[in-house]
Amino acid sequence: MSKNRTHTDARITLAHGNGGRLMRELIDEVFAQALGSQLDTRVDAARLPLNAPGSDWLITTDGFTVEPLEFPGGDIGSLAVHGTVNDLAVSGATPRYLSLNVFIEEGLEMAVLERISHSIARACETCGVRILAGDTKVVRHGQGGGLYLATTGIGERRHGVELGIERIQPGDRLIVSGTVGDHGTAVMLAREQFGLSGNLLSDATSVAPITESLLQWPGLRFMRDPTRGGVATVAHDIASVAGATVRLFEKCLPVRKEVRGVCEILGYDPYYLASEGRVVAALSPEVAEPAVEILQRLGFHDACVMGVIEPGPPRVILQTGLGGERILPELEDDPLPRIC
Amino acid sequence: MSKNRTHTDARITLAHGNGGRLMRELIDEVFAQALGSQLDTRVDAARLPLNAPGSDWLITTDGFTVEPLEFPGGDIGSLAVHGTVNDLAVSGATPRYLSLNVFIEEGLEMAVLERISHSIARACETCGVRILAGDTKVVRHGQGGGLYLATTGIGERRHGVELGIERIQPGDRLIVSGTVGDHGTAVMLAREQFGLSGNLLSDATSVAPITESLLQWPGLRFMRDPTRGGVATVAHDIASVAGATVRLFEKCLPVRKEVRGVCEILGYDPYYLASEGRVVAALSPEVAEPAVEILQRLGFHDACVMGVIEPGPPRVILQTGLGGERILPELEDDPLPRIC
Repeated sequence: MSKNRTHTDARITLAHGNGGRLMRELIDEVFAQALGSQLDTRVDAARLPLNAPGSDWLITTDGFTVEPLEFPGGDIGSLAVHGTVNDLAVSGATPRYLSLNVFIEEGLEMAVLERISHSIARACETCGVRILAGDTKVVRHGQGGGLYLATTGIGERRHGVELGIERIQPGDRLIVSGTVGDHGTAVMLAREQFGLSGNLLSDATSVAPITESLLQWPGLRFMRDPTRGGVATVAHDIASVAGATVRLFEKCLPVRKEVRGVCEILGYDPYYLASEGRVVAALSPEVAEPAVEILQRLGFHDACVMGVIEPGPPRVILQTGLGGERILPELEDDPLPRIC
Repeated sequence: MSKNRTHTDARITLAHGNGGRLMRELIDEVFAQALGSQLDTRVDAARLPLNAPGSDWLITTDGFTVEPLEFPGGDIGSLAVHGTVNDLAVSGATPRYLSLNVFIEEGLEMAVLERISHSIARACETCGVRILAGDTKVVRHGQGGGLYLATTGIGERRHGVELGIERIQPGDRLIVSGTVGDHGTAVMLAREQFGLSGNLLSDATSVAPITESLLQWPGLRFMRDPTRGGVATVAHDIASVAGATVRLFEKCLPVRKEVRGVCEILGYDPYYLASEGRVVAALSPEVAEPAVEILQRLGFHDACVMGVIEPGPPRVILQTGLGGERILPELEDDPLPRIC
């Protein structure tokens, strides 16, 4: 919904769900408008005010509509656990509990549902979370996408952790924990309609080992997992809140050869494609390189400093390998619906 | 999924979502099987173990797929708030917080989404709950039902309240707080395909005033809101857990004339149709009548004692007005998909 919408026949488009500008406007102008001050739409996880002295709980929620339901490296079940657990982890919380909503389309094979249920259980075990509440709805054939899931997660924030996108200042560095766009590309390749195939796996996994490491640094300002909209969209959110320019270095940004190849064929930009097991973090300048070194030693070999916050108008600049500059615009059209 | 399923081509049917036998088997044999002891599938709201001394928090979740999205007496937005708030209320908790998942089908009119968002906000205000976390996904035209919602609710259990279906004993009375099947019938009438119309409103609302009143009685054993599957399905759950016979009195059970008329035309049984603002409660025999009298004085004029738990095999008997008996079987085929 654009600000100059005056006609009454406006309808939802796929671009309202892509994590970019239209989605932000939909949330700000419809949901936040109606729900008033109830909802902080800018955080990955919100404080759960429980009057429980000595503990600090966070809550987050996410919906999952990935197509196909099973893809190389994961499925909608593991994704629904990791996605919500990761939103808690990047907020500095230890994930503890989940609720699970299941919307099944009539005709879904029972065997698929059984595999995905077991995948959910394995992911919960890996992440140390427990499902406390669940609900199942079945919709008619032709009124669903096989299976949609929603998970709400509750986690305990580590004592003394203070993170927030608003804490980022010019001079801060942006790091990324690994290659970008693997998940988006792997899901795309798994869709028959693209007529491509490859050995690429989704990177979907828990980011807790990464966030645990980064939380050691007092200079850590902010973390986010670059899902829908990719690292470019995280950079835009930072530029917008910090009122500053985000400069990303193309020669540092780790992109797998296969991802770059698929993007060239299909005309996509890997910086806008989803990862589901990476972390983008903003750190004060003196700790960015040491933090990356520790991550590399932990096995995150592609971790790197990918950018810097500079004084200047809120925008995202990609400094290309040849020393040129390219503006990365805010995502508008949806390149890849139902990627997560 | 029946217990004797041996073929590998089993698929989900609408009956897996109707609150009856197939749904229970799906939950027990697929989800509970995979998730092991993580999930108590028999409670309306589960304990949220927060290590918060002096407080006792419950969590519940529910998905909403009602068609049409707006119906006389409510819409999917108010339903998504009331449905989850009611699961907390019948568990003896005061609802406090919600998370909200939105799955929008491409093409939904923005004006509809705006009306429903405001309806969500009004319902939250009425119920005294706050939405802390939200997420929006958009799916392609033809892959959704306009709008699906999921809400997870967190509430604080009243001190000293101990309720549970397993506390019900032979001799206990079952009461219902008002007419049954209004919601199911109103939604049905709102669907053009039935070619019927009427002035009936859905009963969808918060049941907190009812549960607050019933919680005063030490003889209160258990409360549930008779949604999918209606009062007959609540009675079956009780019969199954208590290992006893549930006898319902047709001449007491309050059914609106319009509901009975529509059921006669379409061949439905009102005892299986959803209510979204009623409470079924089990109480010890000596307090059932006084509890009903108080409810009537509070304005719930149709509240009544509708049944009794008897020693005997687990089954549900309807004692008809003429003194005969009819077995009410466990719901199997789905009479009304997408009713909530």
